[in-house]
Amino acid sequence: MLVDGKHYRTIWRDGEDGVLVIDQTVLPHEFRITRLCTPAEVCHAISSMIVRGAGLIGATAGYGMWLAAVSAPENRPFVPWMKECAAALTATRPTAGNLAWAVERQLKRLADLGPEPCRDDAVALLRSEAERIADEDAEFCRSIGRHGAELVASIARSKGGKTVHVLTHCNAGWLAFVDYGSALSPVYAAFDAGIDVHVWVDETRPRNQGASLTAWELGRHGVRHDIIADNAGGHLMQHGMVDLVITGADRVTRRGDAANKIGTYLKALAAADNSVPFYVALPSSTFDFSLGDGVSDIPIEERDGGEVRRIRGLGETGKTESVLLCPESSPARNWAFDVTPARLVTGLITERGICAASEEGILGLYPEHSGRCPA
Amino acid sequence: MLVDGKHYRTIWRDGEDGVLVIDQTVLPHEFRITRLCTPAEVCHAISSMIVRGAGLIGATAGYGMWLAAVSAPENRPFVPWMKECAAALTATRPTAGNLAWAVERQLKRLADLGPEPCRDDAVALLRSEAERIADEDAEFCRSIGRHGAELVASIARSKGGKTVHVLTHCNAGWLAFVDYGSALSPVYAAFDAGIDVHVWVDETRPRNQGASLTAWELGRHGVRHDIIADNAGGHLMQHGMVDLVITGADRVTRRGDAANKIGTYLKALAAADNSVPFYVALPSSTFDFSLGDGVSDIPIEERDGGEVRRIRGLGETGKTESVLLCPESSPARNWAFDVTPARLVTGLITERGICAASEEGILGLYPEHSGRCPA
Repeated sequence: MLVDGKHYRTIWRDGEDGVLVIDQTVLPHEFRITRLCTPAEVCHAISSMIVRGAGLIGATAGYGMWLAAVSAPENRPFVPWMKECAAALTATRPTAGNLAWAVERQLKRLADLGPEPCRDDAVALLRSEAERIADEDAEFCRSIGRHGAELVASIARSKGGKTVHVLTHCNAGWLAFVDYGSALSPVYAAFDAGIDVHVWVDETRPRNQGASLTAWELGRHGVRHDIIADNAGGHLMQHGMVDLVITGADRVTRRGDAANKIGTYLKALAAADNSVPFYVALPSSTFDFSLGDGVSDIPIEERDGGEVRRIRGLGETGKTESVLLCPESSPARNWAFDVTPARLVTGLITERGICAASEEGILGLYPEHSGRCPA
Repeated sequence: MLVDGKHYRTIWRDGEDGVLVIDQTVLPHEFRITRLCTPAEVCHAISSMIVRGAGLIGATAGYGMWLAAVSAPENRPFVPWMKECAAALTATRPTAGNLAWAVERQLKRLADLGPEPCRDDAVALLRSEAERIADEDAEFCRSIGRHGAELVASIARSKGGKTVHVLTHCNAGWLAFVDYGSALSPVYAAFDAGIDVHVWVDETRPRNQGASLTAWELGRHGVRHDIIADNAGGHLMQHGMVDLVITGADRVTRRGDAANKIGTYLKALAAADNSVPFYVALPSSTFDFSLGDGVSDIPIEERDGGEVRRIRGLGETGKTESVLLCPESSPARNWAFDVTPARLVTGLITERGICAASEEGILGLYPEHSGRCPA
């Protein structure tokens, strides 16, 4: 997507030993590009949320496996080193479906080279596979936009061309993927097609990816939006001010239960209570076909309570500062995701089209996964 | 309640021409007492949320009417001046039920003195009525605690004495009333009776009354608590980590629909979806017996979007600072309350006992209001 007229992806290869990423911890107040060279730097970038979002975590992990091969120590056996790096990458964000998926995909490519691969071959193969993962992510998100925009267009038609109000939670825009985004891709596609669309942006505490990233993206693209507290969505839906909810997902089970940023479940409940359609947009890389019941089976990451107790923003002096929001002695807990049961999801918007959030619906679009049953 | 071993109410008369209040905009980082002398100062204190919370707004308005009489200009007709002050006070917070209730109560006392009351008589009468409103508020809240503590105790028994986890939204503690509080009064009473109770404190964006006021109150009283993002409650309830939700209310209709801080409705939906009991605690002064359907009939205050875009906290230098959370160019909307329909409320905890959130349940406790039907 465009930043000040220049096309950017969120991650791209920089020569033969590094990748460049947009540092998402300093947006919207600063646009900073950061270089990652080693698997340790990649792990830190993912766990500290310099990069975040379903697809981007996957793409970064793909490149991380390439950089693991590039920087493998001469004096250590190669394959065990690669497996160690794979485990470290996978452990950075336990809920993220795309993360394990991308790491597994790279390990399979590596296995194609036999038990003792030539290191140069491995570097070349993992590099091209990392590029393919990134390209596919962008392409799949573009397709999600095409399918989702039809939904937005049909609502616009049913409203006689009046503004379509979309509510979204967290950031599932192009910053969360390699390009285009999942939840926001339909919004961009509809906007570009001339549909009058407005977005209610949940600020998404505690890390405010809505207020900082989604608002920034939408603003740069010229899409009309208003930031709201996460608490406000139910009230808006009660009063007919939301036509459609679209969120992204961090992992979706074969039955359609969707792990996404904490608070998504509350919006899904409000949507169901007010008959507002609630869609989850995801590329197929976010499906975890090995899981059935999302509430019991998807591991939920708990992060540092300090992310709730303090918040960063632009201070009065023009510098980014952190302020304490609570008494010094009060502790906080901080779960990063919740799971929205499939019964609350109107449909899933994927690169292959829209389907019901059910095993039947999902396997209808992805019949190649019919054989694998949940553990 | 106690602050550093000294008993405080949130508001008290200071001589013959002022009241003292705890400035709630600077808590928890500073404990500051502010004096209010004129109706204009009282209006500003309410609208800027130096004082806030259902009961405290009512008590402050009661004293505000007394101060209106004290400071009535000699050269202006007295009764029209008082009515003007009453209208100004009532307009400060449109959703607050106790506000209109207290102002009406003072206007009725004034009317008891006839069409052209002696100013000194009016001052004396309004002063004693303001004190009565404040005393009643404290007394009613103490009773709410007694009734609600039985609920907590029965859950503790059913759990074999294991910790009872209560979730609350916003601040409906003693800071929101004259003393004791509504939602937190049962928690304090249970704690004081030796029951092992722990509170999940919703931070309550955008003004963070949970993180700043509820956490401060609970900490001062020694009650175990954890602050959570407003987004987290659904996840906790899905995983059996909440035994009971208690919130306050800003206005409750005769059918039991409850306006409370924005986001309460979302927690009520999650409680219903997970069979967690959801109670609303209120003194009878918060009932609006003239209204039936809360979602359509209770006016919802919209506040400045700046309260969402910026947040105040304790900066790294030890000073309170405001930071910007979003792009400079992104607008925000800011509704202060939402309405939880009675169907989602397990029961109402009042000073007369606990009743169903229904016309029958409410009028069973308050039969003297049976005659008045909603408009």
